[in-house]
Amino acid sequence: MKLNLTTGIIPSLNVSAGLLGFFFVKTWTKFLEKTGWLKQPFTRQENTVIQTCVVASSGIAFSGGFGSYIFGMSQTIANQSTSFNDAMNVKNPQLGWMIGFLFVVSFIGLFSVVPLRKVISIQSTHSFTSNFKLFILLRIICFFMLMVSVWIQIMIIDFKLTYPSGTATAYLINSFHTPEGAKLAKKQVRTLGKFFSFSFLWGFFQWFYTSGNNCGFDYFPTFGLQAFNNSFYFDFSATYVGVGMICPHLINVSVLLGSIISWGIMWPLIGNKAGVWYSASLPPSSLNGLQGYRVFISIAMILGDGLYNFTKVISQTLISLSQEIRDKRNSVLPVADGNSPATSPPSYDDERRTKLFLKDQIPIWFALGGYVTIAIISIITVPHIFPPLKWYYILVIYIVAPILAFCNAYGCGLTDWSLASTYGKLAIFTIGAWAGASNGGVLAGLAACGVMMNIVSTASDLSQDFKTGYLTLASPRSMFISQFIGTAMGCVISPCVFYIFYKAFPDMGRQGTQYPAPYAAVYRGMAMLGVEGFSALPNHCLELCYGFFFASILINGIRDGVGKKWAQYIPIPMAMAIPFYIGSYFTIDMFVGSVILFVWQKINRAKADAFGPAVASGLICGDGIWTLPSAVLALAKVTPPICMKFLDSATNARVDAFISGS
Amino acid sequence: MKLNLTTGIIPSLNVSAGLLGFFFVKTWTKFLEKTGWLKQPFTRQENTVIQTCVVASSGIAFSGGFGSYIFGMSQTIANQSTSFNDAMNVKNPQLGWMIGFLFVVSFIGLFSVVPLRKVISIQSTHSFTSNFKLFILLRIICFFMLMVSVWIQIMIIDFKLTYPSGTATAYLINSFHTPEGAKLAKKQVRTLGKFFSFSFLWGFFQWFYTSGNNCGFDYFPTFGLQAFNNSFYFDFSATYVGVGMICPHLINVSVLLGSIISWGIMWPLIGNKAGVWYSASLPPSSLNGLQGYRVFISIAMILGDGLYNFTKVISQTLISLSQEIRDKRNSVLPVADGNSPATSPPSYDDERRTKLFLKDQIPIWFALGGYVTIAIISIITVPHIFPPLKWYYILVIYIVAPILAFCNAYGCGLTDWSLASTYGKLAIFTIGAWAGASNGGVLAGLAACGVMMNIVSTASDLSQDFKTGYLTLASPRSMFISQFIGTAMGCVISPCVFYIFYKAFPDMGRQGTQYPAPYAAVYRGMAMLGVEGFSALPNHCLELCYGFFFASILINGIRDGVGKKWAQYIPIPMAMAIPFYIGSYFTIDMFVGSVILFVWQKINRAKADAFGPAVASGLICGDGIWTLPSAVLALAKVTPPICMKFLDSATNARVDAFISGS
Repeated sequence: MKLNLTTGIIPSLNVSAGLLGFFFVKTWTKFLEKTGWLKQPFTRQENTVIQTCVVASSGIAFSGGFGSYIFGMSQTIANQSTSFNDAMNVKNPQLGWMIGFLFVVSFIGLFSVVPLRKVISIQSTHSFTSNFKLFILLRIICFFMLMVSVWIQIMIIDFKLTYPSGTATAYLINSFHTPEGAKLAKKQVRTLGKFFSFSFLWGFFQWFYTSGNNCGFDYFPTFGLQAFNNSFYFDFSATYVGVGMICPHLINVSVLLGSIISWGIMWPLIGNKAGVWYSASLPPSSLNGLQGYRVFISIAMILGDGLYNFTKVISQTLISLSQEIRDKRNSVLPVADGNSPATSPPSYDDERRTKLFLKDQIPIWFALGGYVTIAIISIITVPHIFPPLKWYYILVIYIVAPILAFCNAYGCGLTDWSLASTYGKLAIFTIGAWAGASNGGVLAGLAACGVMMNIVSTASDLSQDFKTGYLTLASPRSMFISQFIGTAMGCVISPCVFYIFYKAFPDMGRQGTQYPAPYAAVYRGMAMLGVEGFSALPNHCLELCYGFFFASILINGIRDGVGKKWAQYIPIPMAMAIPFYIGSYFTIDMFVGSVILFVWQKINRAKADAFGPAVASGLICGDGIWTLPSAVLALAKVTPPICMKFLDSATNARVDAFISGS
Repeated sequence: MKLNLTTGIIPSLNVSAGLLGFFFVKTWTKFLEKTGWLKQPFTRQENTVIQTCVVASSGIAFSGGFGSYIFGMSQTIANQSTSFNDAMNVKNPQLGWMIGFLFVVSFIGLFSVVPLRKVISIQSTHSFTSNFKLFILLRIICFFMLMVSVWIQIMIIDFKLTYPSGTATAYLINSFHTPEGAKLAKKQVRTLGKFFSFSFLWGFFQWFYTSGNNCGFDYFPTFGLQAFNNSFYFDFSATYVGVGMICPHLINVSVLLGSIISWGIMWPLIGNKAGVWYSASLPPSSLNGLQGYRVFISIAMILGDGLYNFTKVISQTLISLSQEIRDKRNSVLPVADGNSPATSPPSYDDERRTKLFLKDQIPIWFALGGYVTIAIISIITVPHIFPPLKWYYILVIYIVAPILAFCNAYGCGLTDWSLASTYGKLAIFTIGAWAGASNGGVLAGLAACGVMMNIVSTASDLSQDFKTGYLTLASPRSMFISQFIGTAMGCVISPCVFYIFYKAFPDMGRQGTQYPAPYAAVYRGMAMLGVEGFSALPNHCLELCYGFFFASILINGIRDGVGKKWAQYIPIPMAMAIPFYIGSYFTIDMFVGSVILFVWQKINRAKADAFGPAVASGLICGDGIWTLPSAVLALAKVTPPICMKFLDSATNARVDAFISGS
């Protein structure tokens, strides 16, 4: 949640969740064993099931859109623009409707991924070729019924998609349950614990110096005041140093480059045009002023990148699918070439995994019924929450969603890249434009984004989980139940945590504060573009947007064109776009994290690889957890005792005179 | 110099001087070898000679009294009291007289340590017993002539005094000139270099935030504003963290304890008596107010400790000497007990060392002539520099000094504890009282302290050096020449460095500033006590002083009484007294250093022992060297651009209103 509300950059925390899950349950079971209440050992299957629950629960923090569409509906964000800040397009966060909304839209994603196991199991790997026609028929029925989907099974068993994150988690969990792995895990957990405590205490320490605005380490002009005013400074955030240590070096360099281009070059230049390109008297947060350039140019880059990747992943999906189908058809004929991996006999491991994966079934009527039931509930209730989102919009979304969910789950299995937010943006534009400016199109667009994103992102997340389960021999039924519980927990916990932040930090969402929640403004900006078209943009902004939109596509194209060797030196436009709106400080934090990891890797590669993620997770979690007590302190109106202020030499002289004079 | 002017705590930097000396000359000789100009290797004898020069040169920074008696003469310190701040008792630092004064008083120490080698060598170890009577006679002549002294030779060859620091340096230098030692030294130098750069850059970084008073990391209220006002805060000084890493844990705990007793308990309590015990309207730096309690109570503790150790070391010296003489006398008779270490035959190493040590002689007429010549010059010129210091005072000092110098060199050889400053204090009191209040007694006392301290401290420093030379087989004549050059360098360099500080930081010497130079006020306070007696003290201060004086003696007595095992848990009064005047911040730095070293030792004892001193030296030197450019910047009136200010919540609100309103 903290990551959501600060920069929106969320690295994969699966490894740390896995580590901590293993550690806590291991401690707990050891304790139980000692008391004699527990006889069985803690297995990797149980570990996987726990991990699934944690991921399902924490995933809601992201797909719930607290940093994007939900918060984008609020009055705070709406007031940054002069248009669409009327009651029809504004919905302030409240605990009740947020939990309700999440319950309806999150569970539908869950049911959409329950595989048609009973049907498919007949013609699975072993007896696949004999029943090929039935399989194809069934699959076509599935697609066209659009009610439940078969992809988990297809993707994991038939297509053997990699699902890099899910696979990595599975190997991690498998390793925990070997003697050396358990030993290493213990050391890693100790490292994590140390850095967690350090990071927590550091956050606590920083708090004391934040009495008043612009006080404390968050406003430390590390590179001088001029650089500070252009948002270049190191803000001593343990979180983003940790994020930098988890993210690949290329991402860190990309965000830094993006920040140099935007805050180092472009914004100062555009700022000089104040009064020429836009009215100089606008408040600094107005989307009609400099802020507009920031938001819309970063939207342009994000959309360019999204469009490119959408096209790429979808075409890869289609090519891969059609090949797969062709292969299957050919494999009906006797095959001479035994080297083809598609036709090689499954290994013992795979056979055992497949058997187990197919054993524990969730009945199809249950999945089907669940999907339909929740869709109906959703269609009835959601329009009550968001009046501009009519019931037929939701129906359309629910008809289209499973296809998109399938595409996303497939693409994610191929590339580890979830396009959930891209599909969400698609919903914003289409539904927003459909609803129109006069019918609360902005709010409708944002709400539609929520519905869409939840289904699509749940589909890919849970496919990853199923891959983990497949590799660790966990029962799919247990995993489904675990996901169910996790989702329910997430639907309650996430809104509560967000609500604490929202109440504790009233200036949340404003650029330049501690919690700028950049994507809230970006998503609302997109909704406004969808409803209003380009008329909302300040002067020359459209030209710049076009430039960055196509640059973003071009850079992506070059990245894919030059091959892997050179691609690692070409920045990623998506990453570059993030600092455009929020500023450079976190890019410097991330770069520091990257440098620390780089130096560590140079000194001792093995150790850095083993303990780097633990250190990073410790830093992120410790600082993240500290924000909760800090929010409570803010709610209780406890002011920190000291202000650490940074004044330029001249102001300081005046202030000194003022203090001694008074 | 920086250590002198900040807290006056100066740890032994011999190891780092040795390391750096070795490193630089090794690099230089390697370079020369490559060019073909140099054929011989770099030997440990050369290394020792270089080390001697460095130590002689840097020793002047301490014995020159820039942090104590010389700066104590200045108007800045004099103005802290209402008495004795007239022209007769004030002498502001100026480059000319400081260099002149140092030249006359430093070289006399040098000549006083030149041993009577030619005479003594006849009856040294081998043929000692046969010529015992001549030896004793000569020795008595020496003592009574009080012109030149024999102790170096006596102490090193005959008495085999340990001179712990000198021995340690010798082992260090010897180790450098073995293959493994050179390898380790290289690694240590690299570590030192890293921490040197870090510390230098950290100092540089801190500078940017010190625009104006009370700005920057030096005023960081780490434990809150209340603690800060009682001087409890961590001031991020790399120097004192390094000092804490070099000093024994007990010293660090002692200073911390002293600061808790004084700044944590006593000063706040006495501060409550403002207006009762002393006038509340006095400026905070006045010795008649709270500052008086601070200065005089710490003087009392220092004097108590000094008296105790003086008595102890002198009695040890006398006992050891009389035993030595008795042993020598007994050894004329044939000895049956071969186990007695005094009579065991010298080892091959020792024989070789002794032979070499006695080979290269400095003629006695040279030493004698040198001492007398310089004494005469000194007696003529010094009264011109300090009019209250009459020529006969100086004559008396020069007659008494060699005995004291002998005692100090002997005691230092036994215990590694130089009593130079104690003898200096003795001179303050005696000469000050002799001159009297009406004849500029304060200035006379301080100047006499300078004359005395230089002779006495040079004697013990150079004995340490000769011990090093003895153990590394270096030629004593080369060492003498090297000491001569080093002393000359020190006499020019140290005053110049001090003068830069003095000009660059005009508020130097004031308590609470960056350079409080605590001993300057302490020494002046002692001189005032000597001249005026106890009438200068504020109310109840005398009682407190008595209490602390005797407590200091008592604690020392207990330390020696309980045995080594328990003594390590009993604080050292001398160390406790230092924070009484300056405050607690550096005790916290030192404690942090101590904790870092302690943890490091727990993790990897061998590594901590090998690299701890290198890290500490790097931290101290880097920060110390940074002060030079910072002084130059201050002289050039370059103001740092930013002020990092710490305001309490209420003041901050007012300041924010002021800034936004104006």
